[in-house]
Amino acid sequence: MENFTFQNPVKLIFGKDQLGALPNEISKYGNKILLLYGGGSIKKNGVYDRIMESLAGDNLETIELSGVEPNPKLSTIKRAVDVCKSENIDFILAVGGGSVIDAAKAVAIGAQNDADVWDLITKKERPSGALPFGTVVTLASAGSEMNASSVITNWETKEKKGWSSPFTYSKFSILDPTFTYSVPPEQTTFGIVDIMAHVLENYFHHSLNTPVQDGLCETILKDLLETGPRLLENPDSYALRETVMLNAVLARNGMLNMGSKGDWATHDLEHAVSAIHDIPHAGGISILFPNWMKHVLDEQNEARFKQLAVNVFSVSPEGKSNHDVALEGIEALRNFWNLLGAPQNLSEYNLTEEEIEAIADKSVEAKPAYGKFKKLTRHDSFQILKASL
Amino acid sequence: MENFTFQNPVKLIFGKDQLGALPNEISKYGNKILLLYGGGSIKKNGVYDRIMESLAGDNLETIELSGVEPNPKLSTIKRAVDVCKSENIDFILAVGGGSVIDAAKAVAIGAQNDADVWDLITKKERPSGALPFGTVVTLASAGSEMNASSVITNWETKEKKGWSSPFTYSKFSILDPTFTYSVPPEQTTFGIVDIMAHVLENYFHHSLNTPVQDGLCETILKDLLETGPRLLENPDSYALRETVMLNAVLARNGMLNMGSKGDWATHDLEHAVSAIHDIPHAGGISILFPNWMKHVLDEQNEARFKQLAVNVFSVSPEGKSNHDVALEGIEALRNFWNLLGAPQNLSEYNLTEEEIEAIADKSVEAKPAYGKFKKLTRHDSFQILKASL
Repeated sequence: MENFTFQNPVKLIFGKDQLGALPNEISKYGNKILLLYGGGSIKKNGVYDRIMESLAGDNLETIELSGVEPNPKLSTIKRAVDVCKSENIDFILAVGGGSVIDAAKAVAIGAQNDADVWDLITKKERPSGALPFGTVVTLASAGSEMNASSVITNWETKEKKGWSSPFTYSKFSILDPTFTYSVPPEQTTFGIVDIMAHVLENYFHHSLNTPVQDGLCETILKDLLETGPRLLENPDSYALRETVMLNAVLARNGMLNMGSKGDWATHDLEHAVSAIHDIPHAGGISILFPNWMKHVLDEQNEARFKQLAVNVFSVSPEGKSNHDVALEGIEALRNFWNLLGAPQNLSEYNLTEEEIEAIADKSVEAKPAYGKFKKLTRHDSFQILKASL
Repeated sequence: MENFTFQNPVKLIFGKDQLGALPNEISKYGNKILLLYGGGSIKKNGVYDRIMESLAGDNLETIELSGVEPNPKLSTIKRAVDVCKSENIDFILAVGGGSVIDAAKAVAIGAQNDADVWDLITKKERPSGALPFGTVVTLASAGSEMNASSVITNWETKEKKGWSSPFTYSKFSILDPTFTYSVPPEQTTFGIVDIMAHVLENYFHHSLNTPVQDGLCETILKDLLETGPRLLENPDSYALRETVMLNAVLARNGMLNMGSKGDWATHDLEHAVSAIHDIPHAGGISILFPNWMKHVLDEQNEARFKQLAVNVFSVSPEGKSNHDVALEGIEALRNFWNLLGAPQNLSEYNLTEEEIEAIADKSVEAKPAYGKFKKLTRHDSFQILKASL
């Protein structure tokens, strides 16, 4: 392992009928609340009403801001920051999945500082703090509810920026698996792909002596292999929903990279894709990850791929070269995501060959090479994108 | 899973040469420090000197209190509380293993409240807060460095009391595996037994749908099976020491019982043993645990024992009854602990048959039955103790 520091102060409140905790948790920080949510699915599935009910009569004043996009936009963040400042908001309650929670992190930091929020996100300016915020999770996917990370898209500059700050941990996160019953099949699949991708990004590293971390990664992946197809058949299964919801948290709360530095090149490349052509994050990830794997696989690193193939996908190594075992593992991942209905080609989103030139440029805009397991250049980006078309 | 709340704010600082973080971390809380440690092994192995060096010249004043016992005594806690109060201590630095850290938790809560510290520990009085404290860990075992739990022995009343409080999380814990190089073989073995026992206490529960938690438990156990014997051969192996040190933390930081309630009867029974006859905690655990397993194993719960046998101890279930597979797993655990040199019988500590009557009484003193996986009465305690003689 490498030296590491781990601290994650988020209070997870997990299970059925936990909304009753809301007034008490919020009152610790204030009583004027910005309720931040997305396209309104929480109104259809009843979560909105249940939240309003739990907040009623506790001397809590709520101002709403809805319409946070799946890839949350800087323009939306700025609008919400203005509301926080003009209305003297003292707590943000984010209700939704990763996008809404990511947005809440940006709003929290923008609202508590004089500097422009994009300058804070891009670290041109240092924040001195953030408004406190909490989350009610309605999508098992990003795990943003238990980490400090956020991704915001600036459409003016076509930049999709991943960032974090010590101030952007939520004070509490309420995870009720029943709130995800109404998530449609495609989003359920995307959630599982996203969680698995987070585990895989952490899994591909060169740190030595990480048997526990490897075991945790493999446990989560196997659990999702087992759960995913059954969940698509039984979307109202509490047990299956809770399994996915907990795995989403564990995949991204910092535990899996205690003592190691994961790759994250596929996420970087997907951000470049989405910055040029707005596609669902997990859709991009599903397409790119197996192609990243095939592209970077070589004699020096094939042991890691073999371990994944054998331990997670039960590939028999008997009488096969390491390389062949590794490839079988990659194929098994591709097949599993196909089985769930996840996309396999960028053309499914109407991406064109010209666009992938621009995406390849974008992927190395910030620095000439990226990815920790294997450094990628513009040429690598282009090759992976071409294989993904 | 059952509904749960999880929050663990401890900052882990893990790896080689991390003591440099001390002055900065402590200065956040104050500058008058109580340095709490045990029997002086930190003076022999150089950790004491390195701490003093890192604290020198930072306007930090240090008062020392050494001699914290392996089963820390209330009398020692009271002495330390008096020092904190009379010297206006504003931060406690615990240097040692679980006993010293457990003691620090009691001192922290005693120093910040007017009530008698035993009344605070036994919840007769409610604490309003605690002095902040940090830890430098020198023994991989209890995992007390990343939880709020503590065990204190009151020799006047012969009570060994496990307790916790929301105020007794350390502000930071520095875990440098090299600080455990000098831990003697017996203590290294006890550490491994203790960690495995924590995992096992969590593993034996009746909550449904805990595949991730089971996987984490099994990963840690298998990791220790693999690491333990090699570590005894190579006590100065950084990789093996770091593996055990991280596992100690993961076994007791609350992650393994997200959504389930472990048994903990063996710990309760061991506390009764040590309260009557002062033996090393892990020594008692090593003797009692396999006998607890054999005693509680029945047709209703044998699936859990079988899962342990198959997944952790690689027992082949082929052509065997569940009961036989379960027994083979228990035997494998006993053999593994024997291989590490852990004790198997209470008579090795000169416990007598008369004493086990008193211990059986003690085990049900607080309540008539204990243990969550299977309720135990005085009769059960006696049977397990008798099998352990």
